[in-house]
Amino acid sequence: MTTLQYRAPKTKCGEKSFQKIIEAGRTLFAQNGFHATSINLIIEKANIAAGTFYIYFDNKLMLYLYLLNEYKINIRNASREAVKGLTNRYDIERAGIKAWLIYVFGNPLAYKIIWESLFVDQKIFMNYYQDFSDSYVHQLKKFVPSEVNPDLDLETMSFVLMGISNFVGLQVLFKDQITDQEIDFIVDQVMAMLSQGIFNKTTATK
Amino acid sequence: MTTLQYRAPKTKCGEKSFQKIIEAGRTLFAQNGFHATSINLIIEKANIAAGTFYIYFDNKLMLYLYLLNEYKINIRNASREAVKGLTNRYDIERAGIKAWLIYVFGNPLAYKIIWESLFVDQKIFMNYYQDFSDSYVHQLKKFVPSEVNPDLDLETMSFVLMGISNFVGLQVLFKDQITDQEIDFIVDQVMAMLSQGIFNKTTATK
Repeated sequence: MTTLQYRAPKTKCGEKSFQKIIEAGRTLFAQNGFHATSINLIIEKANIAAGTFYIYFDNKLMLYLYLLNEYKINIRNASREAVKGLTNRYDIERAGIKAWLIYVFGNPLAYKIIWESLFVDQKIFMNYYQDFSDSYVHQLKKFVPSEVNPDLDLETMSFVLMGISNFVGLQVLFKDQITDQEIDFIVDQVMAMLSQGIFNKTTATK
Repeated sequence: MTTLQYRAPKTKCGEKSFQKIIEAGRTLFAQNGFHATSINLIIEKANIAAGTFYIYFDNKLMLYLYLLNEYKINIRNASREAVKGLTNRYDIERAGIKAWLIYVFGNPLAYKIIWESLFVDQKIFMNYYQDFSDSYVHQLKKFVPSEVNPDLDLETMSFVLMGISNFVGLQVLFKDQITDQEIDFIVDQVMAMLSQGIFNKTTATK
């Protein structure tokens, strides 16, 4: 059973307890992982009454799925916001990668929560990235053959693009601080590679 | 303290116990994560006497670092073996990616052990990929400008290439089975993207 279910708070006070649980879960899952985090630890960290957890979530898995889904929604929203009004794929790709880099730098726990799904239930991890891949393919298809090379396999392209974003995201996260200019430099480099590949023109015709 | 230290077995019987510990650690770390795995659980799973663990490892972290280092060495060896005798970067890149895909399909726990480092100690995770990046840059440099476009930043390129390998690796892992032809298809697609980018020629000149 890996479908998210929770009961949303109905009062202002309930909202406060709910948020305390979310933040305690985020911190503990990111620090020690899912299996080493008990509901009791979450209750203690959130500083709430023991029964309060169960008002909103049936179990620890549902809290984890809530967090994962929250990241998924926030990541998609950041990307959607960034590409608003853009009409060609080059500009969309550029704005999407830049928005992602800014997002991960501001939300360094995102990787931990998302990749922890490998340990919670590998199916959750697979669904997470397969969904992203499917939606990427759906979006890319609109630009074939007008902008995107029709000889290329879109599923592979979606994993290539997700891989680039995720690892260039790590490159950014590994730095203590980063300027807007440095982010732009990385984004421009990625776009140059996506436009012309990494080889010299003479090699690229191989 | 994140430097690997262990005492190698000196007898055939010791080698057997040592391997039992390694395999128990691999299974438990991959299943439940580092923090939810105790030395007692490892001892129980390995079916060894309680003191035997400490003959080889001072603590759980050293066993984890042993496993991580083993993957690092095996991954580098698989790649080194695959590119032996190749002299141009295109062929080296192609053979390296193919060897990696075959490796991950045969060693599906590799991702779990490597990415678990995020939870063991984020510094270990950073060092792991920063080391790979540094070594990638060192290798790529030899082909600039002869084959690799000198306008591109090699650090960013190394993260782009690691990202592609890792996520195309996931694409392969998500399949229940895969043929040689299917692996070749994915590798060819990746090489086409690395050669010409993902856009049409007209867009690529942008």
